[in-house]
Amino acid sequence: MSVFLGIDVGGTTIKIGLVSEQFELLTKISIDTRADSENADQITQRMMLTCEELLAKNGMTLADVLAIGLGAPGTILNKSGMYTFAGNLPFRDYPLREKIRKYYSGQIYFGNDANVAALAESRIGAGQGTANSVMITLGTGVGAGVIINNRVYSGFNEAGVEFGHIVINVDGEYCTCGRNGCWEAYVSATGLIRQTKAAINDNPDSILAQVAKEQGKVNGKTVFLAVDRNCPVADRVFARYAYYLQVGMANLINSFMPEIIIMGGGISYEGDRLINSFKQGALDEAMLFGVPMPDFKTATLGNDAGMLGAAVFAFDCLTDGLVY
Amino acid sequence: MSVFLGIDVGGTTIKIGLVSEQFELLTKISIDTRADSENADQITQRMMLTCEELLAKNGMTLADVLAIGLGAPGTILNKSGMYTFAGNLPFRDYPLREKIRKYYSGQIYFGNDANVAALAESRIGAGQGTANSVMITLGTGVGAGVIINNRVYSGFNEAGVEFGHIVINVDGEYCTCGRNGCWEAYVSATGLIRQTKAAINDNPDSILAQVAKEQGKVNGKTVFLAVDRNCPVADRVFARYAYYLQVGMANLINSFMPEIIIMGGGISYEGDRLINSFKQGALDEAMLFGVPMPDFKTATLGNDAGMLGAAVFAFDCLTDGLVY
Repeated sequence: MSVFLGIDVGGTTIKIGLVSEQFELLTKISIDTRADSENADQITQRMMLTCEELLAKNGMTLADVLAIGLGAPGTILNKSGMYTFAGNLPFRDYPLREKIRKYYSGQIYFGNDANVAALAESRIGAGQGTANSVMITLGTGVGAGVIINNRVYSGFNEAGVEFGHIVINVDGEYCTCGRNGCWEAYVSATGLIRQTKAAINDNPDSILAQVAKEQGKVNGKTVFLAVDRNCPVADRVFARYAYYLQVGMANLINSFMPEIIIMGGGISYEGDRLINSFKQGALDEAMLFGVPMPDFKTATLGNDAGMLGAAVFAFDCLTDGLVY
Repeated sequence: MSVFLGIDVGGTTIKIGLVSEQFELLTKISIDTRADSENADQITQRMMLTCEELLAKNGMTLADVLAIGLGAPGTILNKSGMYTFAGNLPFRDYPLREKIRKYYSGQIYFGNDANVAALAESRIGAGQGTANSVMITLGTGVGAGVIINNRVYSGFNEAGVEFGHIVINVDGEYCTCGRNGCWEAYVSATGLIRQTKAAINDNPDSILAQVAKEQGKVNGKTVFLAVDRNCPVADRVFARYAYYLQVGMANLINSFMPEIIIMGGGISYEGDRLINSFKQGALDEAMLFGVPMPDFKTATLGNDAGMLGAAVFAFDCLTDGLVY
């Protein structure tokens, strides 16, 4: 039996999956990343030993692996094999492929985590059957993965696409990237929480404030829970948030004209009511005259998208004859 | 001898060129479009008769043409052969390929004018040797053409890329597309003229106001002429304009990570002082950590880019085996 190893490196956990040639997730395991207590060598070693254990449990060794695909945050370069930069992880100018090569002699492929997740959704998830799609992940930040002609698009330097860091409001809200007014600052869960807190501060007697009190905190769900309880303050927060989504989605359509835009991340669990809050406005704003309209869908692969996407990415690289 | 016919349909003129297989512009002719006085059939007929005349003058007929490439503004669809929509031209849901077919039995390919101009600059102009580039044209509006893997990128519906209509300022200046705060509203020649006029209004005794008076009007050059005469008011207008360019260029880099961004259109004749006004700021703002930086260059093909690009586009379509 031959499998792909799909590895999803995250700030908190590393997820490892064995993936069939038909892109079925056969088995998986998750380990703590230990980004605060271990260095890059230690994390890499533990990751590879876990791969070997997972394979052994299923009667295989690394020799049965068709290729390794690994997705990770930040700048991880497929051509050079270097893990150049990651905000929250101890990898910097780190020769990750060289280190993994000590365990595995086959092909080892690296992709950005948002890119490979988008690839998985495009190939076997919400975007199945499309050749051009974009996945937008509304989490702590805003992730974007662009698929063009059935392949991950990351630009000439493998550093794209960072569509969360498109300024939609010159001199607007501070963004973690150093710019002001990025889309991420408005439509990430972090941005929504900021807008929710501001509304609670201005309306301490609102149902929205009551919901936050009951929750014991404000998170990305607070405003939606209050909308469910017919809170007009929450309605206004949601409407403004939806407007920021609409503006950025029209920007996205005008930039990439994707057949489908796939919504991922925690806030995407709001499903159709989220999509319906901005969809028509975004299509109306975009430059679409006498041409087919893009569609919006909620992601379907959940937390497995990273592992599956890493495996699909490895498959694509093998198909394209990349020897890495 | 075999040539490509490269046709560049514009609001004012239609340019027709005979282009060699090495993409040399052998000869060209320009005729009035007559968008206000003729209908689509009349314009198409006159255009094709002019093609035949140009060929005849050079000892050829349409039978010597390898393929026809035609670039035009608005929505012109290569797959269907329909000229769907153009703001200033009498083409709407018009079966242009079918009409041209009456004169020519070979392959007929259609592209958006900004896209094919970008292709020409990418292949034989300022972007020669790059596979991923973007051309931004600062004219009455802001045109954008994106080249990915040596091919025009226009999305799943052939309607892209409209990067001028990326909102950079939510609820900002009105844009002709109906949105508010588009990049085009700030960095087009139209936007620069608006900013120049506002500064003149606020500073009637400035050198800038004096220059406008001498010119008898305000155009895209006014502010630069006043900068040349050490006008501090003009310096401020230019600095703010450069800032809007910087923000949008960082957006563009974060979206496409192109190897090169090519500046076209009237304002691009300012050359290096224009590019140097925003380049470093844009690179600093963009998400570029430990990766190669995009570069900026001024377009080199001038008004021939449309004809040449239409021919290069026809060459690419033939190469890719498209039978249209």
